[in-house]
Amino acid sequence: MLSRKIADRLAAFETPFYLYDINLLRQTLDSAVTVASRYGFRLHYAIKANYDPHILAVIKEYGLGIDCASGNEIRCAIEAGFDPEGIVYAGVGKRDKEIRYAVSQGIFSINCESLQELELINSIAGEMGVVQDVALRINPDIDPKTNSCIDTGQADSKFGISYEEVMANAAEIQAYRNVRIRGMHLHIGSQIRELHVFEYLCDKVNAIVECLTGLGFTLDFIDVGGGLGINYDIPENEPVPNFSSVFAIISQNLNVGGREVHFEFGRAIVAQCGELITKVLFRKDTATGRKLVIVDASMTELIRPALYGAYHNIENITSAETRKERYSVVGTACESTDVFDQSVSLPVTHRGDLLTIKSAGAYGMSMASRYNLHDLPDAVYSDEIV
Amino acid sequence: MLSRKIADRLAAFETPFYLYDINLLRQTLDSAVTVASRYGFRLHYAIKANYDPHILAVIKEYGLGIDCASGNEIRCAIEAGFDPEGIVYAGVGKRDKEIRYAVSQGIFSINCESLQELELINSIAGEMGVVQDVALRINPDIDPKTNSCIDTGQADSKFGISYEEVMANAAEIQAYRNVRIRGMHLHIGSQIRELHVFEYLCDKVNAIVECLTGLGFTLDFIDVGGGLGINYDIPENEPVPNFSSVFAIISQNLNVGGREVHFEFGRAIVAQCGELITKVLFRKDTATGRKLVIVDASMTELIRPALYGAYHNIENITSAETRKERYSVVGTACESTDVFDQSVSLPVTHRGDLLTIKSAGAYGMSMASRYNLHDLPDAVYSDEIV
Repeated sequence: MLSRKIADRLAAFETPFYLYDINLLRQTLDSAVTVASRYGFRLHYAIKANYDPHILAVIKEYGLGIDCASGNEIRCAIEAGFDPEGIVYAGVGKRDKEIRYAVSQGIFSINCESLQELELINSIAGEMGVVQDVALRINPDIDPKTNSCIDTGQADSKFGISYEEVMANAAEIQAYRNVRIRGMHLHIGSQIRELHVFEYLCDKVNAIVECLTGLGFTLDFIDVGGGLGINYDIPENEPVPNFSSVFAIISQNLNVGGREVHFEFGRAIVAQCGELITKVLFRKDTATGRKLVIVDASMTELIRPALYGAYHNIENITSAETRKERYSVVGTACESTDVFDQSVSLPVTHRGDLLTIKSAGAYGMSMASRYNLHDLPDAVYSDEIV
Repeated sequence: MLSRKIADRLAAFETPFYLYDINLLRQTLDSAVTVASRYGFRLHYAIKANYDPHILAVIKEYGLGIDCASGNEIRCAIEAGFDPEGIVYAGVGKRDKEIRYAVSQGIFSINCESLQELELINSIAGEMGVVQDVALRINPDIDPKTNSCIDTGQADSKFGISYEEVMANAAEIQAYRNVRIRGMHLHIGSQIRELHVFEYLCDKVNAIVECLTGLGFTLDFIDVGGGLGINYDIPENEPVPNFSSVFAIISQNLNVGGREVHFEFGRAIVAQCGELITKVLFRKDTATGRKLVIVDASMTELIRPALYGAYHNIENITSAETRKERYSVVGTACESTDVFDQSVSLPVTHRGDLLTIKSAGAYGMSMASRYNLHDLPDAVYSDEIV
């Protein structure tokens, strides 16, 4: 339960809203940057996790680059003041105009996901009279032991080029005049909690790098992607993800060979600092006896539970009750999938109580929609209310 | 394959875009309205299916009322010129301000989903010095034989009040001074293709109406909801849904007793008239041999396949190839779930081809998001291009 003072301040905002703990964001960034600098690793923020300008401004202070998935994301990063030389552009479906914009901005690298795309980038850069730095995004074919919806690195996935294909076409790739292959990019998925997966990744990268250099490619950097999972189950136990372990694993297992090593973290940077605050509108029981708590948030503000069956920890932050009951917490949208938790134990909950849906800083607001013509939720920042 | 003339006209628009066949929309409305009028049934359009102003203007011509799921939807309907007296407001999570707005606009009915909500409406209408007409949304506890994500009428669902609860609290409900219970509302789900389900619905309604009238409720109207499914598999076979059969079933099985009978159709009105036109960006094969077609649309424009595993028929509308191949059609979003079809047979498909993703007029644009900072897609109307 919140202190009276904080509860009163939160009550001033119209629910639902995202509440961001900027101190936690700073601690997270501090941890990531401090440990990364020990190894000389370079960090990028995967901006698709959250576009909030206040959050971007804080991330910028810590010197991270930006990983983008569209031309508009590049534009957003540049408008937020990020240096184009720290921007990487990945994505399976780049439009011509997006590639043209990326090239025109002189970004650090376009991470190329197919040979057809590489040919297109070469052609566009040629028309523009420049040579574009690119990385080959190689599909490493690793089972990331995560939710099948968010794995991105298996052989059958839509992401990346198979390295057999790169090897078979090495001469053609090297003959392009307007792209310079400077790096290799791998990303094996998202929300990875079994860190030994990163060891396999290193084994794969080492083998692929050896092949590629044997074929005459000069790689200046290796982008090992992101994917570091966070603790959705009990966020309090791990407010800052375990960057140290991942960096140590990569450092111990990757044959760096003097190359730059890049990481791109989205969820690991911003998920835990954000929560969705929502008000209880109604309490009712179904004919089967299920106790429903109907809140004023919905899948339009946070779609992860409906889209992925994702778990988010929920707490009642204003109830003074000591007795607990088991509830289904459901949203306002006219959809049966709009359920935040089928069964969560909360203090006896009443109309007007505030609930928090935790670990919602990543892929919350950035995936919001206006279905049912819901207004987009506001953001409230801890450093502006206390 | 499209005629050269049409293909050239479509090529002028930036993909992806929604293409609406306004003639088909008119045929659909004409069919629904003509058959409904034979029985004296009143039709509402469930506006959440599609908010497009051009589509709303056409629907308005046919005299339908509007079924809303939020205060903003009521505002949208009124701004589109619909008479508040034809507007119904349903939804499990109505905010105070939304109820206040609905009451202030003098809408036809608020469909009330819990006793707590009824008490709130009574209190708000009391403060405003008016008597608000409401319908009780009763949970009919029927298995609608549809996708579990979109069924809304089972006993355990978040929607509606159990009729046992209404009966147990009849005296209290009738004592409210600022709400007048004028109707009963049931909605058993969406995309119902097994029409005998509507017979069960009638049996339930008859029993509930008998109970309620026995308890002294005077019901002027029965809103039997919507839920009529469309043919996603082979849209050409059934461009206009089978309104006749549903109306006949309701007419034959419902003890109307001189009451108004209301229907609310969303998908059945607008799904088939809309398609999402998208361009092929790249073709590549995975290491496992899967042939990928990467298009410039994504789950941000049409989330139904990712969210519900929903099927949409896809065609290549510009390929001149006669040979067919089996493809996975995937979108641009940085998500593994962003797949429109895992395996569809299309004429040999190349970069630059236009594909159509059919039956996308309902719950397409209305559920769009700006994830990956994608621009929202434009709409193109058949009556403006040919």
